[in-house]
Amino acid sequence: MTVRLGANRYGKAETRLVHVVRDGPVHHLKDVNVSISLSGDMEAVHLTGDNAAVLPTDTQKNTVYAFARRHGVGEIEEFALRLAGHFTATQPTIQHARVEIEEYGWNRAGPHSFVRAGGEVRTCVVHHDRDGRRTVVSGLTDLVVLNTTGSEFHGYLVDEYTTLPPATDRVLATAVAARWRHAGDETPSYATSYEEVRGALLDAFAGTHSLSLQQTLYAMGERALATSPGICEIRLSLPNRHHFAVDLSPFGLDNDNEVFYAADRPYGLIEGGVLREDAPDAGFAWE
Amino acid sequence: MTVRLGANRYGKAETRLVHVVRDGPVHHLKDVNVSISLSGDMEAVHLTGDNAAVLPTDTQKNTVYAFARRHGVGEIEEFALRLAGHFTATQPTIQHARVEIEEYGWNRAGPHSFVRAGGEVRTCVVHHDRDGRRTVVSGLTDLVVLNTTGSEFHGYLVDEYTTLPPATDRVLATAVAARWRHAGDETPSYATSYEEVRGALLDAFAGTHSLSLQQTLYAMGERALATSPGICEIRLSLPNRHHFAVDLSPFGLDNDNEVFYAADRPYGLIEGGVLREDAPDAGFAWE
Amino acid sequence: MTVRLGANRYGKAETRLVHVVRDGPVHHLKDVNVSISLSGDMEAVHLTGDNAAVLPTDTQKNTVYAFARRHGVGEIEEFALRLAGHFTATQPTIQHARVEIEEYGWNRAGPHSFVRAGGEVRTCVVHHDRDGRRTVVSGLTDLVVLNTTGSEFHGYLVDEYTTLPPATDRVLATAVAARWRHAGDETPSYATSYEEVRGALLDAFAGTHSLSLQQTLYAMGERALATSPGICEIRLSLPNRHHFAVDLSPFGLDNDNEVFYAADRPYGLIEGGVLREDAPDAGFAWE
Amino acid sequence: MTVRLGANRYGKAETRLVHVVRDGPVHHLKDVNVSISLSGDMEAVHLTGDNAAVLPTDTQKNTVYAFARRHGVGEIEEFALRLAGHFTATQPTIQHARVEIEEYGWNRAGPHSFVRAGGEVRTCVVHHDRDGRRTVVSGLTDLVVLNTTGSEFHGYLVDEYTTLPPATDRVLATAVAARWRHAGDETPSYATSYEEVRGALLDAFAGTHSLSLQQTLYAMGERALATSPGICEIRLSLPNRHHFAVDLSPFGLDNDNEVFYAADRPYGLIEGGVLREDAPDAGFAWE
Repeated sequence: MTVRLGANRYGKAETRLVHVVRDGPVHHLKDVNVSISLSGDMEAVHLTGDNAAVLPTDTQKNTVYAFARRHGVGEIEEFALRLAGHFTATQPTIQHARVEIEEYGWNRAGPHSFVRAGGEVRTCVVHHDRDGRRTVVSGLTDLVVLNTTGSEFHGYLVDEYTTLPPATDRVLATAVAARWRHAGDETPSYATSYEEVRGALLDAFAGTHSLSLQQTLYAMGERALATSPGICEIRLSLPNRHHFAVDLSPFGLDNDNEVFYAADRPYGLIEGGVLREDAPDAGFAWE
Repeated sequence: MTVRLGANRYGKAETRLVHVVRDGPVHHLKDVNVSISLSGDMEAVHLTGDNAAVLPTDTQKNTVYAFARRHGVGEIEEFALRLAGHFTATQPTIQHARVEIEEYGWNRAGPHSFVRAGGEVRTCVVHHDRDGRRTVVSGLTDLVVLNTTGSEFHGYLVDEYTTLPPATDRVLATAVAARWRHAGDETPSYATSYEEVRGALLDAFAGTHSLSLQQTLYAMGERALATSPGICEIRLSLPNRHHFAVDLSPFGLDNDNEVFYAADRPYGLIEGGVLREDAPDAGFAWE
Repeated sequence: MTVRLGANRYGKAETRLVHVVRDGPVHHLKDVNVSISLSGDMEAVHLTGDNAAVLPTDTQKNTVYAFARRHGVGEIEEFALRLAGHFTATQPTIQHARVEIEEYGWNRAGPHSFVRAGGEVRTCVVHHDRDGRRTVVSGLTDLVVLNTTGSEFHGYLVDEYTTLPPATDRVLATAVAARWRHAGDETPSYATSYEEVRGALLDAFAGTHSLSLQQTLYAMGERALATSPGICEIRLSLPNRHHFAVDLSPFGLDNDNEVFYAADRPYGLIEGGVLREDAPDAGFAWE
Repeated sequence: MTVRLGANRYGKAETRLVHVVRDGPVHHLKDVNVSISLSGDMEAVHLTGDNAAVLPTDTQKNTVYAFARRHGVGEIEEFALRLAGHFTATQPTIQHARVEIEEYGWNRAGPHSFVRAGGEVRTCVVHHDRDGRRTVVSGLTDLVVLNTTGSEFHGYLVDEYTTLPPATDRVLATAVAARWRHAGDETPSYATSYEEVRGALLDAFAGTHSLSLQQTLYAMGERALATSPGICEIRLSLPNRHHFAVDLSPFGLDNDNEVFYAADRPYGLIEGGVLREDAPDAGFAWE
């Protein structure tokens, strides 16, 4: 039997950086979680333990902190691109860098005081290859939304294992995880496009009379692409957080979609993408 | 050896109830998690498995849903009191009921659309004894706050294991867990007192120049008691979420409290209470 | 309004220590999580931020590591007592120390190789007061057990909200959390008593034909006290992890307790203690 | 702008099934978590909400339970293949099925009593396409292992952000997540190959003198392929759970790799695959 090394990457995951901008009495805060993955000439380290091509993950962590001091953080996509470009530019053995960042929001509570926002987490994944190709995917996770009406589900396939009754009015709830790919040559305003896409997702969720969660997913994706012209593709993962109307008839009570049991598991999971017809090839953007 | 049954209680934990109020086109939402604990004549069930004194936990769950339909939810303290009073009033074998509720906040995104608020969770624990005594403790958890300056720590005990340098300017961050006890005979507005106490905690955290997290804790408790006259005691648990300034000198960079590593573990944990001199006896309120 | 400081304590929580004993080619491993809480003359630090009575939590962390080097870890109860005694003995301002330790098990996979055991976590909480009183509570959490038969539930109270049908054969599953208090003057072998109590809990769970989870709880406690004579009291918390037999009749199938849905929430929660008639006063043991 | 639907799939996630085999007084237990994803003619449901091609996720859940009753569970790969084949065989609109299963281990504690094993979780992902292609990937997660010696790390790249000192003796710990692809036409014994691969991973981890975690990863993968001939490819994800030797010199103590701080974040993350030179094309196996 002959075996060989397959695809591989390595790096420092979950470097927790809080950056305070202290220009004057009013401070600003960035709270991020940075994960770096590098790949390149890694045959030797796997086969013999020769580390000559390996930049330590500890060094990658140091670089995150030093770059925050040198350049600030700014939009997470920019910070990720700066880091990714650094590793491929400075280390001949590193062919490719992937940087993923999560950003946790804070609301202001005073000139130097903040309250963690909760709610969704902003994300990005960037790739930078030695050959000059770069990709940027922005996103969010844990945006939990719920419609108390305006959702139906019927007309589906029925087989011998189907017991679900059709619904003409149900609660629809999900925790949106969305990632969208930026296209084009000019650098967009990532802050603006984030707000645009987030708003489009919320508007489409709230405004779509839904016959299925798939329809809502597509409407959300379509709205995001229509709202934010720099985006060429969006992928959504929508767990269907089932809210079951409780049968209160044993107690002589009706339940006109007022009292629900919020279930944990199992849950439906709807995953899908929407993209422009002219979207450029994604390359390694989604890896 | 002779052994006997000690303190005991039982009930249904974590009944997840979502209640929709549909009066007109604008819907309202309550999202709660109800945990019930009953105690009373439970000798037989423990010693012989005779369930004659036991109201099933499944029945308790049903009662939560039926009461939501019959009475609505309203403020969680009121809903908890209604449930606790029901069990002690209707079952001779149940001497005492404890009801704990968590409430998850949602922001409006449309007439029947909502976005989960994230941030803190509102809580309550009520007790209702057959003898008529009732206690109400309200609270919140996971209110995460951070000051970028205005915090010092020095002048502490130094022993042979002390290596910490004194700090005259540090980040102070914590995830506030607070519970406050209501006193007095008249029913307060729990919604109002919640907003008062939450606001007082935030104001005191942001407004206190802190020489220790204990000082901040006391200031927060004192402010809450001063702001909300129906409260006679407050207990706070404040994990000190350490943010360590990264040493950037190896890279030729200074770090004037701008770049921090947000640590997970270990963490300081400061727990303490503040109460009025004339606070009535707590009884079982904190159990 | 006059307010005052109530009960309080502070310390370093969750110091993660791994201790390797390297005597010869066969190494030994201890993996623990240490949480310390100190109390004493803490009026000033709360009211004015004067830290003169405060031993920093960072120092407490250092002490954990230094003591592991100086004395080894041994049984977690012994390590906790050594730490607690140190703080009250060396700092006049510290009246009382509480030390809680979790221990994670590892199985041997080679002379210096180990596999994390999973399963239950061993725990202890010790108190040491300046006045010389000491208490030791040992325990375990997350011991998940399941009987596929030998469990019934019927003969319970029925009210207008009761819909549960009686069961003469059901799955009984729980995640055991148990804590037991040591009595007597001589130091027990904590390793031996741990194995005795753990074995007694398992035996009683597996061997008790159960008419209610309360009956099982009491049998487990009674068996532990009977097996391990140094124990004077045990407290158990048993979530009833419901396994519901799935109704397969719509598919023309019976289900004679073979196919179950394992539910997450809600769950029954049974809490209770068993103690010797002659158990000494617990004092602060359970705090 | 013209947009279109991209890749998509939907299904019921995390159906929790416990199956009891009650042949005689000695019972057997299977505890699994089943997640199904179907894809096919889903254009209409996304664009217009027409559910005519959609088999409800509720039906998928029912099918899991009915199949457990009809056929038993057996090895999780077999159960997954049976489910996946069912959906593609019976629904013309379903072109492709992906079934993922987690299995939780239990140890016997009596003829009908069990203790949850903790430790690793066994996994599989199978695909079944309408065109007849099937793939099977088996795996495990959360196999936590640690070597107290026999690990070095030096000779790495040094840049201006490198401060890590070289190590000639360090603790090496990781939580193994491994997935391996079965090749060949005949159905293997999944139970046997699981034990072979698990054993090979442990042996290689414990037996490799490691100059880098990458070298250990490759050795583990190579050993698995050499041990289990039905496997053509294996992919490993190894978080480097850093254990830092604590500097005890301020306390006048040495620390010859005996006292460690077990860090949470950040952590190194090493990901890589090993495959036979003659491994057939993976197709959709890893999706």
